[in-house]
Amino acid sequence: MRTSVLIQLLGLLLFVFQAKAQYRNEISIPDIPGYLTLKCDFHMHTVFSDGDVWPTVRVREAWGNGLDAIAISDHIEYRPHSQDIKSDHNRSYEIAKPLADQLGLILIRGTEITRKMPPGHLNAIFIRNANLLERDDWFEACKEAHEQGGFIFWNHPGWKAQQPERTLWWREHTRLLDAGLLGGIEVYNSNEYYPEALRWAQEKGLAMMCNSDVHDPIEVQYDLAKKHRPVTLVFATDRKAESIRNALENRRTAAYFGDSIVGDRQFLKPIFLASIEVVSNPVNLKNQTVKNIAIHNKSDLDFILVRRQPSVGFDTPKHVTLKAHSTSMIEVTGTSDEVAAMKKLKIYYEVTNLVVGPGESLPVMFEVDNL
Amino acid sequence: MRTSVLIQLLGLLLFVFQAKAQYRNEISIPDIPGYLTLKCDFHMHTVFSDGDVWPTVRVREAWGNGLDAIAISDHIEYRPHSQDIKSDHNRSYEIAKPLADQLGLILIRGTEITRKMPPGHLNAIFIRNANLLERDDWFEACKEAHEQGGFIFWNHPGWKAQQPERTLWWREHTRLLDAGLLGGIEVYNSNEYYPEALRWAQEKGLAMMCNSDVHDPIEVQYDLAKKHRPVTLVFATDRKAESIRNALENRRTAAYFGDSIVGDRQFLKPIFLASIEVVSNPVNLKNQTVKNIAIHNKSDLDFILVRRQPSVGFDTPKHVTLKAHSTSMIEVTGTSDEVAAMKKLKIYYEVTNLVVGPGESLPVMFEVDNL
Amino acid sequence: MRTSVLIQLLGLLLFVFQAKAQYRNEISIPDIPGYLTLKCDFHMHTVFSDGDVWPTVRVREAWGNGLDAIAISDHIEYRPHSQDIKSDHNRSYEIAKPLADQLGLILIRGTEITRKMPPGHLNAIFIRNANLLERDDWFEACKEAHEQGGFIFWNHPGWKAQQPERTLWWREHTRLLDAGLLGGIEVYNSNEYYPEALRWAQEKGLAMMCNSDVHDPIEVQYDLAKKHRPVTLVFATDRKAESIRNALENRRTAAYFGDSIVGDRQFLKPIFLASIEVVSNPVNLKNQTVKNIAIHNKSDLDFILVRRQPSVGFDTPKHVTLKAHSTSMIEVTGTSDEVAAMKKLKIYYEVTNLVVGPGESLPVMFEVDNL
Amino acid sequence: MRTSVLIQLLGLLLFVFQAKAQYRNEISIPDIPGYLTLKCDFHMHTVFSDGDVWPTVRVREAWGNGLDAIAISDHIEYRPHSQDIKSDHNRSYEIAKPLADQLGLILIRGTEITRKMPPGHLNAIFIRNANLLERDDWFEACKEAHEQGGFIFWNHPGWKAQQPERTLWWREHTRLLDAGLLGGIEVYNSNEYYPEALRWAQEKGLAMMCNSDVHDPIEVQYDLAKKHRPVTLVFATDRKAESIRNALENRRTAAYFGDSIVGDRQFLKPIFLASIEVVSNPVNLKNQTVKNIAIHNKSDLDFILVRRQPSVGFDTPKHVTLKAHSTSMIEVTGTSDEVAAMKKLKIYYEVTNLVVGPGESLPVMFEVDNL
Repeated sequence: MRTSVLIQLLGLLLFVFQAKAQYRNEISIPDIPGYLTLKCDFHMHTVFSDGDVWPTVRVREAWGNGLDAIAISDHIEYRPHSQDIKSDHNRSYEIAKPLADQLGLILIRGTEITRKMPPGHLNAIFIRNANLLERDDWFEACKEAHEQGGFIFWNHPGWKAQQPERTLWWREHTRLLDAGLLGGIEVYNSNEYYPEALRWAQEKGLAMMCNSDVHDPIEVQYDLAKKHRPVTLVFATDRKAESIRNALENRRTAAYFGDSIVGDRQFLKPIFLASIEVVSNPVNLKNQTVKNIAIHNKSDLDFILVRRQPSVGFDTPKHVTLKAHSTSMIEVTGTSDEVAAMKKLKIYYEVTNLVVGPGESLPVMFEVDNL
Repeated sequence: MRTSVLIQLLGLLLFVFQAKAQYRNEISIPDIPGYLTLKCDFHMHTVFSDGDVWPTVRVREAWGNGLDAIAISDHIEYRPHSQDIKSDHNRSYEIAKPLADQLGLILIRGTEITRKMPPGHLNAIFIRNANLLERDDWFEACKEAHEQGGFIFWNHPGWKAQQPERTLWWREHTRLLDAGLLGGIEVYNSNEYYPEALRWAQEKGLAMMCNSDVHDPIEVQYDLAKKHRPVTLVFATDRKAESIRNALENRRTAAYFGDSIVGDRQFLKPIFLASIEVVSNPVNLKNQTVKNIAIHNKSDLDFILVRRQPSVGFDTPKHVTLKAHSTSMIEVTGTSDEVAAMKKLKIYYEVTNLVVGPGESLPVMFEVDNL
Repeated sequence: MRTSVLIQLLGLLLFVFQAKAQYRNEISIPDIPGYLTLKCDFHMHTVFSDGDVWPTVRVREAWGNGLDAIAISDHIEYRPHSQDIKSDHNRSYEIAKPLADQLGLILIRGTEITRKMPPGHLNAIFIRNANLLERDDWFEACKEAHEQGGFIFWNHPGWKAQQPERTLWWREHTRLLDAGLLGGIEVYNSNEYYPEALRWAQEKGLAMMCNSDVHDPIEVQYDLAKKHRPVTLVFATDRKAESIRNALENRRTAAYFGDSIVGDRQFLKPIFLASIEVVSNPVNLKNQTVKNIAIHNKSDLDFILVRRQPSVGFDTPKHVTLKAHSTSMIEVTGTSDEVAAMKKLKIYYEVTNLVVGPGESLPVMFEVDNL
Repeated sequence: MRTSVLIQLLGLLLFVFQAKAQYRNEISIPDIPGYLTLKCDFHMHTVFSDGDVWPTVRVREAWGNGLDAIAISDHIEYRPHSQDIKSDHNRSYEIAKPLADQLGLILIRGTEITRKMPPGHLNAIFIRNANLLERDDWFEACKEAHEQGGFIFWNHPGWKAQQPERTLWWREHTRLLDAGLLGGIEVYNSNEYYPEALRWAQEKGLAMMCNSDVHDPIEVQYDLAKKHRPVTLVFATDRKAESIRNALENRRTAAYFGDSIVGDRQFLKPIFLASIEVVSNPVNLKNQTVKNIAIHNKSDLDFILVRRQPSVGFDTPKHVTLKAHSTSMIEVTGTSDEVAAMKKLKIYYEVTNLVVGPGESLPVMFEVDNL
């Protein structure tokens, strides 16, 4: 009889809780010449390890938050809910996959190899079978991941629980790197930025990763009305898992967190150029006159500019903010008669929140016709 | 060796994800003479039935949302995650209880008896052992709940999936009522209001319930920055489980959802009176003069007033909104010479969003000294 | 000595209060084939009549709010601040013009001919000298405006202070129309919509106007974080005053207020088409399967859709909202075997908040490949 | 005939633009024992000097923003709109007064004596006739203000336009002080904080002032949804102009700007104590157990706490934020067996955003019963 009750119920319940409309808020960080700018998060948990949500929640969140691809990376070695949840290490992927397909979200199979430091925690994504990574020897687990075609990166290298004093690079990481097993490193995790990881990424040729490592419902960790979740920007030739794999392998990533993007100049410069447009052009600047140069910023990011060098013949503000999704003004003031003869005004700033190296901001130049 | 890895990990992970600060946003619906106004939600789900979150999530959400008490009410008969989650019907309560105790949230043991209509879905709360409610006969399940000291209420009586045409009261509900097994009824569930349930609650002596029935993370279902989750207001003598039990038994509840409260006049009138304060008193109104009466509303609810009857000797606006947590003005205009001789101005409105019966709003009167 | 003090002060004060950065929030209602969609407000006041702000405030507000063009329209006949402010009727324009030029905002000279009903209040814009419109005879004032090249429209035709019972068209308006003096009519003013004006605009060939009529600082009247100010959309060949003049003359306008646009179908249909993009195409729908069609809406407006007719072979939701700046899903469900053979799915909705005539919404059709 | 037109118009226009509802958002900084905490702004401008709004706008803004009292302080010596606005120096007060009376806002007559440095700009408030302050000699102007019963304070002492290098105290200020003419100093103006002014206020016995100096509509200068306008907190025996005068004279003020209050310890300590309530009391802490102490903060201000000293026998977090209008948790962990024997837990923090002197925060202690 139980069965028949259940069948009746199934019919009734099937369409019950679908009423809620779903919306996806796109992330406005533009594509760059030659590549799509995919928005990804490769580190997150579910009830199948120490997270608090069912795997489908991660898919819905990611789709609604404007992501293109995610990896669920439940811990191999840490499963505090195992008294109640009996399943293998592939299960969270399998549960999430049908919904991801329906929504058009790219779901990458992943897991977290979870050890004390060294080597700490490592994510392996693009693997084929997480169960085979349950090994006593962490190096063997990494080799297995690699043989499955996995891409391995070091998680939260500066996490105080494992590196309380300083953020150190260990011999074990060199071993992984030399063996061709380590492809990336988180320069940002959850709410922490690791400047050392930026340096290592550039020196040692690792892809920069920026992930949420979310355990709770995403809204618990991030007040999404005010700030976005951390995003690994992936510069890929198309919107496919293989292209993401290829971009990671070739270090075509950047870290987008808070009000900043951290990455190589070759990616951040075209992002800036694709984001802004000089609206009012030309000006007609003479000595003692004041003109406004209107600049539109179509990205989600306020660009915080500081003047790199004073201009000759005219003056510009020391600080300018190009507000997201708005048009901002740069006020230029003629300070000598020669300005009237200039055909172009060249204006030099640094974008302090586009970080292209340790302590280094992206320099930019605006050129405005002066007629 | 696995064990030692795990022990090392436990030490490391223990304090990892507690960094996030937790805040509780109190709900400002005031206490009334003789009773505390407790904020409760007696209907919600976890991964242990068809919900999407771990039981502790429900506790944190409730605490942060300003609730005093909740019941987790996982379905007895519908457990779609049972392939992965093996456990009995008391398990979600047991997992949630330690955190509830730590946060000072009252957690009431409950479950949902889940049948086709009639009798539909029934919540049993204040039970002692949910496993014993797994019966073929729903009436037997209710009797068992009752014998355990449980309080039973009818969920979403107008749910279209079970009552597609009209919201009907069935013979089975009369049977429950006559047997003393039915104590309450949801007049509001999730995002649906059932006016018939208000009428039945008042006619048949049932407690009005107003619950979220949340399955997803709460923020997925409610944009809490804009609107609160549904709340059963319970008028209790103190902040204890037994007092809530007693209040339900004696129908001392009201339904707070959206921008409205629905309940008996004996509770809604003191809520209004405890929420507002006439700030500017007395006025000095004469014929042809205009005065403002400032009224402060300290509750979370905008009170939407409509004039009940024109006043003699002076005029007041037809529509007034007493904005939440703000001071609003009622403009009075003298319209005859006799107003100067009045010692008191009596002003009559109805509060359209305090609903005291089917189609019936709470009438209120402001009395202002006129010197 | 006063002079020298003043000179010293001028030097000091000149750059004092310019520190505040200014941003312009663009309005995302897209251009349509053949025309730019200019955002305009042709009705507002300053301290030079019964407004509360200096004329430059109107320019900064308009620029910041994303407008392309405005007319300040101070009353000729109603100047309650005249005890303190002595000046002629062109003065507010003259004060505002330099700042408008600096910011690149199109400022159109205008005034409000302010009479009792009939004919009520009339705005004359594109005039050359407002002082010459100060006439005892309102018809003469209109003739003068017309001779100056002015464009005249009827303001707030349903304003309760002048038309308390019904919104009537008077003989005087026919007289203006027959004389070629009346070119437009406000279908929306401040916070009031006049459906009669929509009908008259379409029947009598008047341009639809939608203006703020703002007197206070704009933020006092509109909570701009939640809702935009009223906007007359002008479909112009380029971003110039003359092109706006030409568009008004040829009735190429629409009224954008609240969550709606009201206008002729020939403008609203291309606005909708330019706003949305069907992202996920094609689907692969079969009987009993469910697919999601993702639609991106890049405009500022939520489009509220209601199904026009059921589809054959598949089912679509009765209500769909295409949320502003988001991607929304339309869920389609195969309901017969023949759907698998359809090469295209045609889906019919009405956009309830694109109003193309009295009681008439814009019908739209989505066509999706089915492979 | 003009007159009759005007009369007709007046009747029509009188009630036109009053439709907009007005709300007052109270500022939740609590009263302290012995005093009301009045919220005041004593520095602002209108079109009658170099401001951009009509005087009534300042009254409505102040009332809506929850202020108790304001002074409009138009410049004596700087009136850039004088080509259009002909009036004396008392006029802005006179225009604003009737509306202030109607709304119950205390309007204090004031003006700004506007000179180069030294002595810079000085506000004189509680004067009786601003016209008499139009003197060549600034010292004479101050004497006149004083003789009228005026209270004089130094505005924006560190304003870069007048003190580009360093914020200096000049001989002229000593002269004013010695003559008993200088009673206060702005420690905050518009968006600038002057730490030197805090020191001088405490050393020389001046009242600390904190004012908006607003010229534009208030919403242009402050995004009020996110941050409040600067407020001079005045600790007064009642809500009257004379009591404010008395409080200023006796230095009973504090500066509330951004996320901080700056003032003497004798005022800031009771503000903190009146704002918070330890909700969960007692705890039952033992070695190795963790308890949460819930603290409710009913003020508008997040209190940012840093631990002053480690406790003996138990551990508390280094950083705690007591969020505005919320309940926050302080987690205490028993670290030795002796904690079980303590009857009281004493917890020491500093409130970093309650500044009681240069570089000095308010120390606080929470005492919790341990049973």
